[in-house]
Amino acid sequence: MPHFTTTRRIEFCETDMAGIVHFANYYRYMEQAEHELFRSLGLKIAGKTVEGIDVGWPRVAAKCEYRAPARYDDVITIDLTIVKQSTRSLTIEYQFSREGQPLAKGEMTTVCCTMQGGTMKAIEIPPSYVAGLASLTS
Amino acid sequence: MPHFTTTRRIEFCETDMAGIVHFANYYRYMEQAEHELFRSLGLKIAGKTVEGIDVGWPRVAAKCEYRAPARYDDVITIDLTIVKQSTRSLTIEYQFSREGQPLAKGEMTTVCCTMQGGTMKAIEIPPSYVAGLASLTS
Amino acid sequence: MPHFTTTRRIEFCETDMAGIVHFANYYRYMEQAEHELFRSLGLKIAGKTVEGIDVGWPRVAAKCEYRAPARYDDVITIDLTIVKQSTRSLTIEYQFSREGQPLAKGEMTTVCCTMQGGTMKAIEIPPSYVAGLASLTS
Amino acid sequence: MPHFTTTRRIEFCETDMAGIVHFANYYRYMEQAEHELFRSLGLKIAGKTVEGIDVGWPRVAAKCEYRAPARYDDVITIDLTIVKQSTRSLTIEYQFSREGQPLAKGEMTTVCCTMQGGTMKAIEIPPSYVAGLASLTS
Repeated sequence: MPHFTTTRRIEFCETDMAGIVHFANYYRYMEQAEHELFRSLGLKIAGKTVEGIDVGWPRVAAKCEYRAPARYDDVITIDLTIVKQSTRSLTIEYQFSREGQPLAKGEMTTVCCTMQGGTMKAIEIPPSYVAGLASLTS
Repeated sequence: MPHFTTTRRIEFCETDMAGIVHFANYYRYMEQAEHELFRSLGLKIAGKTVEGIDVGWPRVAAKCEYRAPARYDDVITIDLTIVKQSTRSLTIEYQFSREGQPLAKGEMTTVCCTMQGGTMKAIEIPPSYVAGLASLTS
Repeated sequence: MPHFTTTRRIEFCETDMAGIVHFANYYRYMEQAEHELFRSLGLKIAGKTVEGIDVGWPRVAAKCEYRAPARYDDVITIDLTIVKQSTRSLTIEYQFSREGQPLAKGEMTTVCCTMQGGTMKAIEIPPSYVAGLASLTS
Repeated sequence: MPHFTTTRRIEFCETDMAGIVHFANYYRYMEQAEHELFRSLGLKIAGKTVEGIDVGWPRVAAKCEYRAPARYDDVITIDLTIVKQSTRSLTIEYQFSREGQPLAKGEMTTVCCTMQGGTMKAIEIPPSYVAGLASLTS
C-alpha cells in the first residue's frame, strides 16, 4: 500500500501537567503529516486544484490508540499508509514511533469536497490527486 | 446506562480557515466534558483521591465521527454515556449536538493509573470513583 | 473607565509540563473575555452588524505580564477595562486574578475593520458598537 | 547584538475563520524559535543543566505587534535578537517576515529559575548558558 514517512519534534506547548504530550495533539500531528504527504506530491489540501476546483478535505472520522507517551523535545517518526482510497474518500493510517518504539496508531478518513452555495458537497477526487497518490511508493 | 449532559460555547480561536471548528478540538471538548462529569461528582481527574492515591487517567483510545460542522458562537450540547466500566478502565461516549441536530459522536477509553517510580501503572478504580460513577442517573 | 468582569476555569489541556498554564493561553483568555463583553452588549465580534457592515476586529498589539502561575481547575477572574477608545480602535486592559491574588495583566489593541476586495480596511467603529460600549458601567 | 534566525511553515490548524493565523499562535512561534536557539547551542530550556541545576525559564512578559497577516502554508522567517541580558533574565526580540515583508514584531522576557520546595525561585543564569549565548553571532 502507498506510504509516506515524516518526522516532527515535540514542542513544549504540546505537553500537559502530566509531563507528556496532550493526547489531542496527535490529531494535529496526523493532519500536518497528511498535509506534508500532499505537499510532497505538489498538491494542496485547500484551495484551487490544477483542474480549477475549489477543493477541501473535511474529516469524516478520526481515531487514535495510545501505547506509550511522547515527551518534550522527542523527535517522533510518523509513517503514513493509505489503507483505503475510494472515488470520493481517503483513509490514512498513521504509525507514531520514537527510535523504533511504537507510541500510537491513528487513522483518519477524509472526503473530497467542494463548496457549493455555502455548504460542502462531496465530489470525486480530482485526477491530479488520483495521479499524485498513485505515484507514492508502495 | 449512566449519563451526564453539559454544554459549551464555541470560541473564535477554535475555528479554522474553513470557517468551522477544527476537528481536533472535539477531543478537548470530550476531555472537558469528562472533567465536568467528575467535578459534578466531587471527584478530580488528577491528584490525590480521598483514599490518598495519586491518580491519573491517561487515554488508551479516542475516536470521533463528524456529521455536521459547528461554528463560532454556537452553543453545543454534549451528552456523555458511560458505555463500559471495567475494574481499571472507563469508556465514555460523547454525543455532540446543536439544537437537536447531531454534529459528531466520539468515544474515549481511559485507564485509572498511579505514578510508580516515574511511570504510570494501571490500578483498580478507587472506591470513591466507583461510588461516584454509580450515582449518575441512568 | 468602562469595565466588565468574567471568570473562567482553567482546563487540563491548557497546562504544560511545568504544571502551570502555558503562557500563550492568556491571549486566548483575553480574546474570550473580550467576546463575552461584546456578547453581553448584544454585539458580535465578527459578521454583519445591525448597520449591515461586515465587521472584524483584528489585533494590532497584544501584551501580557505574568506575576503568579494559574493551575488546572483554578477559577480565575478576568477584569476588563476599556483604557482607550478612538474612532477606529479599542484598547482593553485585562487583570487576571484568583481569589484576589493578581496573576497577570494584559492589554490588547484592536482595530475595527471591514473586508474590501479581499483585504481588511480600517473603518470607524459603527454606532451600534459605540452605543453598546458607552453603556458599560464605569 | 547576538542573533539567530529560523523559519517555520504555518499549519492549517493555526488559522482561524478570518482565514489568517490566529494571533495567539505568535507566542507559540516565539517560544519554539527560542527553544531552537537554545538547542542550536546544545542547551535545554527545561531539565538539568551541565551544572546539575534543574532549570526553567518562566515568562515575565510577552508582547507582539501585528502588521500583516500570515496564512496557511506560508513559510515565515523569524529573526531573534537578544536585546537585553541581565544576571537572571533574558529579553529576546522576534521579527516575523515572509519573503522580506514584515508581518509582526514580538518580545519576550524570561527569568532563569529553579524549583525550590514546589515553587520557582529566580537564580543567576548558569555559566553554560552564559557561554552559549555569548557564542551567538552578533
